[in-house]
Amino acid sequence: MRKGIAQKADITLDLAQSVLEAGLRHARDSDLLMNIAVVDAGSNLTTFARMDGAWLGSIDIAITKARTARYFDMETAQLSPMAQPGAPLYHIEFSNDGLITFPGGIPLQLEDGAVVGAIGVSGGSVEQDQAVAEAGAQAFRTATAS
Amino acid sequence: MRKGIAQKADITLDLAQSVLEAGLRHARDSDLLMNIAVVDAGSNLTTFARMDGAWLGSIDIAITKARTARYFDMETAQLSPMAQPGAPLYHIEFSNDGLITFPGGIPLQLEDGAVVGAIGVSGGSVEQDQAVAEAGAQAFRTATAS
Amino acid sequence: MRKGIAQKADITLDLAQSVLEAGLRHARDSDLLMNIAVVDAGSNLTTFARMDGAWLGSIDIAITKARTARYFDMETAQLSPMAQPGAPLYHIEFSNDGLITFPGGIPLQLEDGAVVGAIGVSGGSVEQDQAVAEAGAQAFRTATAS
Amino acid sequence: MRKGIAQKADITLDLAQSVLEAGLRHARDSDLLMNIAVVDAGSNLTTFARMDGAWLGSIDIAITKARTARYFDMETAQLSPMAQPGAPLYHIEFSNDGLITFPGGIPLQLEDGAVVGAIGVSGGSVEQDQAVAEAGAQAFRTATAS
Repeated sequence: MRKGIAQKADITLDLAQSVLEAGLRHARDSDLLMNIAVVDAGSNLTTFARMDGAWLGSIDIAITKARTARYFDMETAQLSPMAQPGAPLYHIEFSNDGLITFPGGIPLQLEDGAVVGAIGVSGGSVEQDQAVAEAGAQAFRTATAS
Repeated sequence: MRKGIAQKADITLDLAQSVLEAGLRHARDSDLLMNIAVVDAGSNLTTFARMDGAWLGSIDIAITKARTARYFDMETAQLSPMAQPGAPLYHIEFSNDGLITFPGGIPLQLEDGAVVGAIGVSGGSVEQDQAVAEAGAQAFRTATAS
Repeated sequence: MRKGIAQKADITLDLAQSVLEAGLRHARDSDLLMNIAVVDAGSNLTTFARMDGAWLGSIDIAITKARTARYFDMETAQLSPMAQPGAPLYHIEFSNDGLITFPGGIPLQLEDGAVVGAIGVSGGSVEQDQAVAEAGAQAFRTATAS
Repeated sequence: MRKGIAQKADITLDLAQSVLEAGLRHARDSDLLMNIAVVDAGSNLTTFARMDGAWLGSIDIAITKARTARYFDMETAQLSPMAQPGAPLYHIEFSNDGLITFPGGIPLQLEDGAVVGAIGVSGGSVEQDQAVAEAGAQAFRTATAS
């Protein structure tokens, strides 16, 4: 490897689409109408789907949850307590043209710890959003397990 | 119907104007100065009126309340408890270029459950805003009753 | 149909994904790296894919081309001459939080004339973008032909 | 009148609605689908209507045309030559969160010269937009003639 140059793992469109499809399957099996976004290691939108009839306001929230999860390499649910009044990250949502700090965003992380993207889900209760995101993250872990 | 194509109900300008006029009548009868907005099924502004002397800051709030109610197919009043500190949707207002999560926005829903638009009202107390929005929603229900 | 209520056709996620896949196939067959977006009748993002290595700056352009094509129910290529200095729509791009008025966005139109969405493509020359968008639009026309 | 205090003429909602209705009538008589906005002396949105099936991208343009016409107390058509490359106001559209400098916006001006609002129209060719805006402005002049 050349001096001054790093090599970084990143998710492919193929795998991102598999992750999204796993989320869609879970949503359909649970009779939920969801918006699902997958971003890559650079936090750029890689693939997205909005199920027929899913909330219009959840397009932006799904994308923002995925972006937030990759921005800080943690689940958006982990940010919730830190973003409360009096807590260390109060009003972090003012940064980065808006963040979402409630459940539904999960980083996509390799076994060696590298985060190569994130999934964000919005359309139901935060528990439902989180369950669909977890289904996508599980598909990612299965596909990349050694 | 063609494969891959759905049919969706939407409000017409005629009906949206009737809904707005019902809101204006209620506001005048109650000596209130209101901004009233009606959006369609796509959450696009369909008609709007600002009563003489109504708060300038309420133009945007009325439109955003209508947009929020259609974005999530629920009254903005229902979002209030969920958007509090410690509650599941805390700071959802940072999404979608701004949302309003206090009373005054009501979806316009057909008897079969289809949401074809929303009304948003701002200019008084949240109780007054909600009452004017309800007058508009009631006019919608009467006009579309079977 | 109820008075005051219109019925409007809209694209489903299933068909939108087929349109996107047709665009991806054309891009792969032509050795191109593209971002492809499909919006619905309401100009809302329905599905999206970014091919590995495609330009980062084209994520937003692909989505904006699709949005622009549906906003005015015409190909973005048709807007190009009208948006030039001295032409009737000069600087229309300053509206709607940004528009794109060069080729690569095509409305998805049923045989009866109803526009139910649009495809937007960005990642190569405008001729290449337009060709990939046309491949998606052709798949739409085939799927919805009577 | 108190020292330091000015009196300013402003359009009422009643008159603004009459101006808008005159525009709608002209559009219907000409088989056009238009978005029409009226702003008051403060350049605040006073009333708005989007005809069924009018371009989605024209909601923002109609409002911005009305705003632009009142911002500079001239027809948006008069700004077109001044906003060209090399002309004195080149790129004025970058100000005020976006302006529109092609035809379709007309100030509403009393016989004594006071501008009390503006109408903005978008949905067809710039000639059609201008004709509908002119119909609204004519209704204003008739209503306020001495």
